Amino acid sequence: MKLGVVILAAGLGKRMRSSLPKVLHPLAGRPLLGHVLDAARGCDAERVVVVHGHGGDRVQAAFRDEGCLWAEQSEQRGTGHALIQGMPMMSEVDRVMVLYGDVPLISSETLMRLVEVSADTELGVLTVEMSDPTGYGRILRDAEGRVTRIVEQKDATPEERRVREINTGFLIADRARLQTWLGRLGNDNAQGEYYLTDIIEMAAGEGVAIATAQPGTLSEVSGVNDRVQLAELERIHQRRAAEDLMRAGVTLADPARFDLRGRLEAEPDVSIDVNVVIEGEVRLASGVRIGPNCLLRDCVVGPGTEIQANCVIEEAEVGADARIGPFARLRPEARLADRTHVGNFVEIKKTRVGLGSKVNHLTYLGDAEVGAGVNVGAGTITCNYDGANKFKTRIGDGAFIGSNAALVAPVTVGAGATIGAGSVVNKDAPPDQLTVARARQVTIPGWRRPTKTG
Amino acid sequence: MKLGVVILAAGLGKRMRSSLPKVLHPLAGRPLLGHVLDAARGCDAERVVVVHGHGGDRVQAAFRDEGCLWAEQSEQRGTGHALIQGMPMMSEVDRVMVLYGDVPLISSETLMRLVEVSADTELGVLTVEMSDPTGYGRILRDAEGRVTRIVEQKDATPEERRVREINTGFLIADRARLQTWLGRLGNDNAQGEYYLTDIIEMAAGEGVAIATAQPGTLSEVSGVNDRVQLAELERIHQRRAAEDLMRAGVTLADPARFDLRGRLEAEPDVSIDVNVVIEGEVRLASGVRIGPNCLLRDCVVGPGTEIQANCVIEEAEVGADARIGPFARLRPEARLADRTHVGNFVEIKKTRVGLGSKVNHLTYLGDAEVGAGVNVGAGTITCNYDGANKFKTRIGDGAFIGSNAALVAPVTVGAGATIGAGSVVNKDAPPDQLTVARARQVTIPGWRRPTKTG
Amino acid sequence: MKLGVVILAAGLGKRMRSSLPKVLHPLAGRPLLGHVLDAARGCDAERVVVVHGHGGDRVQAAFRDEGCLWAEQSEQRGTGHALIQGMPMMSEVDRVMVLYGDVPLISSETLMRLVEVSADTELGVLTVEMSDPTGYGRILRDAEGRVTRIVEQKDATPEERRVREINTGFLIADRARLQTWLGRLGNDNAQGEYYLTDIIEMAAGEGVAIATAQPGTLSEVSGVNDRVQLAELERIHQRRAAEDLMRAGVTLADPARFDLRGRLEAEPDVSIDVNVVIEGEVRLASGVRIGPNCLLRDCVVGPGTEIQANCVIEEAEVGADARIGPFARLRPEARLADRTHVGNFVEIKKTRVGLGSKVNHLTYLGDAEVGAGVNVGAGTITCNYDGANKFKTRIGDGAFIGSNAALVAPVTVGAGATIGAGSVVNKDAPPDQLTVARARQVTIPGWRRPTKTG
Repeated sequence: MKLGVVILAAGLGKRMRSSLPKVLHPLAGRPLLGHVLDAARGCDAERVVVVHGHGGDRVQAAFRDEGCLWAEQSEQRGTGHALIQGMPMMSEVDRVMVLYGDVPLISSETLMRLVEVSADTELGVLTVEMSDPTGYGRILRDAEGRVTRIVEQKDATPEERRVREINTGFLIADRARLQTWLGRLGNDNAQGEYYLTDIIEMAAGEGVAIATAQPGTLSEVSGVNDRVQLAELERIHQRRAAEDLMRAGVTLADPARFDLRGRLEAEPDVSIDVNVVIEGEVRLASGVRIGPNCLLRDCVVGPGTEIQANCVIEEAEVGADARIGPFARLRPEARLADRTHVGNFVEIKKTRVGLGSKVNHLTYLGDAEVGAGVNVGAGTITCNYDGANKFKTRIGDGAFIGSNAALVAPVTVGAGATIGAGSVVNKDAPPDQLTVARARQVTIPGWRRPTKTG
Repeated sequence: MKLGVVILAAGLGKRMRSSLPKVLHPLAGRPLLGHVLDAARGCDAERVVVVHGHGGDRVQAAFRDEGCLWAEQSEQRGTGHALIQGMPMMSEVDRVMVLYGDVPLISSETLMRLVEVSADTELGVLTVEMSDPTGYGRILRDAEGRVTRIVEQKDATPEERRVREINTGFLIADRARLQTWLGRLGNDNAQGEYYLTDIIEMAAGEGVAIATAQPGTLSEVSGVNDRVQLAELERIHQRRAAEDLMRAGVTLADPARFDLRGRLEAEPDVSIDVNVVIEGEVRLASGVRIGPNCLLRDCVVGPGTEIQANCVIEEAEVGADARIGPFARLRPEARLADRTHVGNFVEIKKTRVGLGSKVNHLTYLGDAEVGAGVNVGAGTITCNYDGANKFKTRIGDGAFIGSNAALVAPVTVGAGATIGAGSVVNKDAPPDQLTVARARQVTIPGWRRPTKTG
Repeated sequence: MKLGVVILAAGLGKRMRSSLPKVLHPLAGRPLLGHVLDAARGCDAERVVVVHGHGGDRVQAAFRDEGCLWAEQSEQRGTGHALIQGMPMMSEVDRVMVLYGDVPLISSETLMRLVEVSADTELGVLTVEMSDPTGYGRILRDAEGRVTRIVEQKDATPEERRVREINTGFLIADRARLQTWLGRLGNDNAQGEYYLTDIIEMAAGEGVAIATAQPGTLSEVSGVNDRVQLAELERIHQRRAAEDLMRAGVTLADPARFDLRGRLEAEPDVSIDVNVVIEGEVRLASGVRIGPNCLLRDCVVGPGTEIQANCVIEEAEVGADARIGPFARLRPEARLADRTHVGNFVEIKKTRVGLGSKVNHLTYLGDAEVGAGVNVGAGTITCNYDGANKFKTRIGDGAFIGSNAALVAPVTVGAGATIGAGSVVNKDAPPDQLTVARARQVTIPGWRRPTKTG
């Protein structure tokens, strides 16, 4: 059985009040459509076609590398019409499943269930029970439980309105049969649109046994029409991600104040304090502790390391048993070895720091190679940029950089060298010796303090 | 019809356990009473009188400029007694509406509804349905639905206690008639107080048709008696503010972690990450992104600008397509032009920064004029204060300030000038040339590292 | 009556997926077992025995100073078997109460109630009503309401399953009688374990009147089996702590975003903004305001002081009417006098700062004594460490330290002295005079800017 998936993603999304196409709005850092693509891939679809709307360039551009096919629905003429646009690319599959680009939390598990329950028939639909189904199309069944019809809210009798099982819009059908049904869709309704739903009645009328499956939760079939709904699904998604992590052995101080936008690979006994945001691909080894209000993006942290409060770490690597923060900023290509200490108001970029070295206060290290056992004093600045080019600073093992030093790259501080506080070092400093660049201290006789003027 | 409003605000608020009068406790950054004043103004009241308690100086001082009148209730003798204090100032209005200084979420829409339903009668009361009405005065109606009486919890029969419609205390009445009723109020009860509620029974007894209206939500008529209730109403208010913004086209990563204390004017496609606090008057142009844990107060941010994580911005202006933070602090009168970059651990105060200039690391700019295309190196400090007076630093277009420079104001760095790293600049630096103030670097022969003592 | 308490704490806690014993996982910063110990102490237990599992060294080490006794249950053979291990240490008490190391929110009040209701009988059990009791042992009572039996889920008839009162496991019993019952416990069940619950049936069978009490809330008897449950109880605990503080006169901007891990002693009219974490012992005097995203650990803050956004304060003391932050870091032994100002990107460690002194920007003060009325300029660094030893910096009253100064300890700046900007001060600076260490400013003729290479 070859499965094809058509994702309807041409909706205008006016209620988003956005210049960004609705399906590109991010949920957990990934566009809505991306979540649906992931779900489709999770059921081994042979081909996935996205039906986009007029001017779908931004949508296509965003998913350029994700291997899906594209069809355009240039006019908004209903879900049936949208699906018709995608059908030409389905000619080689046996069954077609229809998903929605703005219903992002659908899971592969649910879709697989729908695939399976409908294995022996020509139509399967995903339905769900709602405590308040007002406004939705009700699933009507006969005495044997067979689906006979879907009745829309406005056409329903009072008794029918009491039915709480509703149509989610997700369905799977035999391709050839679906093609036939689509060919018979009409648009004789107030909106003049072609409704995909109508094929369910056709199928029932032809005596097709309609299989049904249900999602794990209502949120799987909840759509995003405005940013309020987007925020609701974001929170549901985050809550689920948090619970998965907790069950896997991560302590979260407050799962309602945790955001994962990407993938977190965490070994057991990682502990994450309140209000931490994780983005991209992050790996935290066992025993890592993350303090409150940290943002980590695309980074790797070694076992036993503590990231204290209010740190921002991006595209960096930290070794084992290190202590970072509070108020540390690690930027791309910061590579900190084991047992390093990086303290408050320190920025490190494109720099290696060796085993056990300390950079504790008010420092900027950029484009540097720092050896092991180095002490970088407070207020140290690597002057890596001359206004046109960037240069390297090299600091040997065991060097001691006095406070408020400026290291003018390219420059090398030898192993074991000491740099006097306040020095501007623009020539190499020899190893094991004291180098200073410092004016003589004088006290000015007869000087008087300025007084308040004006 | 001339409408007068009396706001009862004399309650002691003992359960607040505060030295601040209850009605001055802030909700969303504005005193409770301020919210009630806003609601009163929203229904075009001709005059608004606030009845304050003993020593209402702090209350009056807080609302000095808000154009309301004041009456004192020096003793706590009940709501009826309180209203009597305010009536002398109502002599020129036709109808009097009674609000409460500690019931802050009442909306103008609800009050307008109350005004309208009672247009043709002499008394209108605001009632609400509660799922658990225990403790509240029940609204009793006759078979035709006419209000006949309010019965207090303690006096109610079991059947009456099942009534879930309760009296909120909000009412509107014909002024003259109200005056009469108030004159007949007694205080023959356990507390010896004059209860405003009693006029409802008088009115019913006299055959007055009592009109009723209901608020949009229960929270509109919920009072604040302690800080737990204050926090509850704060959250309801914030949730509503967040939803309004989302519906208008702002993405909030988590509406439960967003605080608006003032007014946010946001164009579409503004995106606000978790845990952001907005205070005062803030304007964010389209496409602005605010990172997590930022505080913005009274500022303006241009289109396309990104404020990264953990920034504090107060009374500042940022142009278009700028990049601020993380860990940036913009203070009053910071004015950043388009495409400026301000990086981590940078403080900017009373300073203009020109088009495309960069201030990326560990810098303090105060009382400065920075041109366009300037690069301010890490660790730069404008020494704007001599202990008595503040002076200006001027940096021309295209200048390059080396790292760890101290610019001793008043001083001018010419356009295109370069300042060497670590320089203390206390005389003007000519344009297009290199200026340095730097000691010669020497290595000390025979020097030995200090060793651990003690 | 002498009361003994046995805390069963030998469970493996596999679902925690942790190398840390379950009862050592922290809730509100204190191990689960610690909360149970606190509850036990709150009912004046004469002795408290903790039954730990195999290799209980870490557990014992964590509670070394808390005065409890220890018994080992080396094999997991059921709750009855666990209690038997603790009984030898109960020989001198009259009654034995059984608590659980992984049920942390049990309150002393509830335990006292259990003690009291069972004063005249030989067995008391704590029961609770659950809306969904599925899976729990139901309490069966006769027509007079006497407990007759506990029936486990699997053995219960449909009617018995409708009973919503369940056994919590907490019980108190006459010591001698308990000893007898324990001696008769069997392990003839699927798991081959000895169940403490069985003694309830024995007691009923012997005609013992079984007293019952109920906890204040279900959460008091909720156990921690995985980190999801741990997070739930953490939030319940925090919510309760927040409400207690609010009722006592502390304003919390959002009680759902407040974490107390230790003890906060707050005078009235303290105001705490969103996302603040309090650890250890913290004292906040009246009128203290704490901004958003602050972390305070073991510190004392004087009346009227404002801690602005994003500060981290640990083991420090701040006087009255001071203004700290935003982005300030106070480290251990920072002692700030009244009316001090500490601004952004400032770190202070082991330093006294005198009355009204200002340290406003980008500064590191370590091992210093700063007098009153001192102005410490932006970028000032105390060079307190020579790579081997730490030394003191002394700054006299009224001194003015120019920006970007490096003070090389040991060094003294006299009272009223002024230090020129950018100076490296390594000799004492006399009082009331200007001391500078500064290179002459020169402009280099004919110099050309570097150009972009590569």
